[in-house]
Amino acid sequence: MWTTTRVTEKLGIRVPILQAPMAGGATTPELMAAVSNAGGLGSLGAGYLSAAAMREAIRRIRELTDQPFAVNLFVPESPREDAVRSAAANGLMRPYRAELGLPEEPSVAAYAEPFAEQIAVVLEERVPVFSFTFGIPSAEVLQQLREQGITTIGTATTVREAVLLEQSGIDLIHAQGGEAGGHRGTFLGRPEDALVGTMALVPQIVDGVTLPVIAAGGIMDGRGIAAALMLGAEAVQLGTAFLTTAECGIHPAYKAALLTSTEESTSLTKAFSGKPARGLQNRFLREMEPHQHALPDYPIQNALTRDIRQAAAKQNNPDFLSLWAGQGSRLTRQETAAELMSRLIEQTRQTLQTRR
Amino acid sequence: MWTTTRVTEKLGIRVPILQAPMAGGATTPELMAAVSNAGGLGSLGAGYLSAAAMREAIRRIRELTDQPFAVNLFVPESPREDAVRSAAANGLMRPYRAELGLPEEPSVAAYAEPFAEQIAVVLEERVPVFSFTFGIPSAEVLQQLREQGITTIGTATTVREAVLLEQSGIDLIHAQGGEAGGHRGTFLGRPEDALVGTMALVPQIVDGVTLPVIAAGGIMDGRGIAAALMLGAEAVQLGTAFLTTAECGIHPAYKAALLTSTEESTSLTKAFSGKPARGLQNRFLREMEPHQHALPDYPIQNALTRDIRQAAAKQNNPDFLSLWAGQGSRLTRQETAAELMSRLIEQTRQTLQTRR
Repeated sequence: MWTTTRVTEKLGIRVPILQAPMAGGATTPELMAAVSNAGGLGSLGAGYLSAAAMREAIRRIRELTDQPFAVNLFVPESPREDAVRSAAANGLMRPYRAELGLPEEPSVAAYAEPFAEQIAVVLEERVPVFSFTFGIPSAEVLQQLREQGITTIGTATTVREAVLLEQSGIDLIHAQGGEAGGHRGTFLGRPEDALVGTMALVPQIVDGVTLPVIAAGGIMDGRGIAAALMLGAEAVQLGTAFLTTAECGIHPAYKAALLTSTEESTSLTKAFSGKPARGLQNRFLREMEPHQHALPDYPIQNALTRDIRQAAAKQNNPDFLSLWAGQGSRLTRQETAAELMSRLIEQTRQTLQTRR
Repeated sequence: MWTTTRVTEKLGIRVPILQAPMAGGATTPELMAAVSNAGGLGSLGAGYLSAAAMREAIRRIRELTDQPFAVNLFVPESPREDAVRSAAANGLMRPYRAELGLPEEPSVAAYAEPFAEQIAVVLEERVPVFSFTFGIPSAEVLQQLREQGITTIGTATTVREAVLLEQSGIDLIHAQGGEAGGHRGTFLGRPEDALVGTMALVPQIVDGVTLPVIAAGGIMDGRGIAAALMLGAEAVQLGTAFLTTAECGIHPAYKAALLTSTEESTSLTKAFSGKPARGLQNRFLREMEPHQHALPDYPIQNALTRDIRQAAAKQNNPDFLSLWAGQGSRLTRQETAAELMSRLIEQTRQTLQTRR
């Protein structure tokens, strides 16, 4: 039966469907609990959350479900501090800041939440599953996670990243295809060389490691789930499909943009965060396209645009929101997460039965 | 049974596997006949062939097989004639020309073979199947093809291209995912927006048209074929997988490069032809990367680099060959086309039986 794989056994879930950890408020405890209660794995995109906010969310999730769930963090990087680049980026954004009624310069207390504090919450709360992206945590952190009995999932965009993750001693590999929305997880080589479509990437990673593989990128319904299983994946992770569910915490204007999008609507951009990510094209993304190479590294650019995105949300202005989306966004629907999960499970079953 | 679909019925073939038409000498009559004799559909990449060469190849194919086969042409475009761009491109290529012992300027008789002469051969020879890319032939040409009883396949990289193809009255839609090697077939909108991964593209095109869909891009073995069928495709087209077969006519240095490639080896480039195409990175591709936007349109740039590629082939120098390849090139093997076809059929059958 397709519902039992090494991934479902390791995670203690009933169907091999993971809801992707999407940072920035999308993954509410209500969304996660609906997914986990339906037999899948809800995931908290905690990359931008403070330790206190993480703890609060985790406790709320536990009130809503007794099933397993995951917490996802960004492995910290050492960005090049470059005052000239930051000043240039601020110069580029000054007209937008004026338009949104923001001060001339952003006030940046810290580029990112401290990883040490975030990981301490994961360990103290003994979350069932910890997933990560943008690199590999230190051997010490991985050892602490193992000691707490926490299952670990690392993100690979290439075979050599998957091999390095396997060597680090983690439990499961998340293979992120080029169709996927949001940030690229690439941590070796050039991101443009690591933009490999799911159809090509999954079999190559499956061949390259012995750990079970979770496929992501462009999977929107039971057809995509069945296809990923054929490629050798033992589970799938869907992000975009969950963005338009009732429980998802994104801005209504963002949901509306997804529901009217096509497969030609997305681009990769470094404009919002300094790291390549796939999102629906809007004014900020388009106008910053010629300046991609002048922007500071992640997470510096992310910090510089933070109040722009916050002001745009308050003003219901999708022109300046980061509208992360995968290339399957046309297939989004307005429904509850429970309805989506039922539909995914039923359509996967039917597809596997009829298309032989 | 997966081997019987609307595509196999329309084409009169036994298994829904098409060998992609790869222009530039790859698709020898021997390769095509091996594929067609194994129950699939061999295809002649005739885009760069003169009418006389096409006729010779078609007659040779008919000596080798009595099974259906396809001939593929490039729908002609009207490039912007831009003397400044052409002069700049020639300037960029002068050092390479010197290195290869070529004259300072290329002698270009014509940018491309005359389409009217090429299509006349297709009609006169009554080839079983005519496939095309880069656009849609005129209504008059499509009418002539219908009158000759020739089955037509058009290439789409987006849903709106597929819809336009369906409206033109052709028979089958080839959906080209972003993983695919060689030239992008995009003829509406920006090629960068139409670079959609196979996993995302196929279900959206299947939903958008009523014609049967042939999936391509990143499909290298039975796992990929089974996956494409799950997505709703009724056949697959593989190009890269056939490049390393014994019968394929590409340069031995090109085959060697494929056999040692990884999923990180390819890039999209306009350097060779003026039109975006995916190929293995080599010196010419890398060094021309910063100059992409300065190059003349296809087929002008193609004509300007023609003797460079020819000289590189003679000198066994893969640095200046167009090494078209998809993102699955790591999975290529040295075998005969008949062995590859048997492996594909058997692995598809096994994958569909076991992964449920």
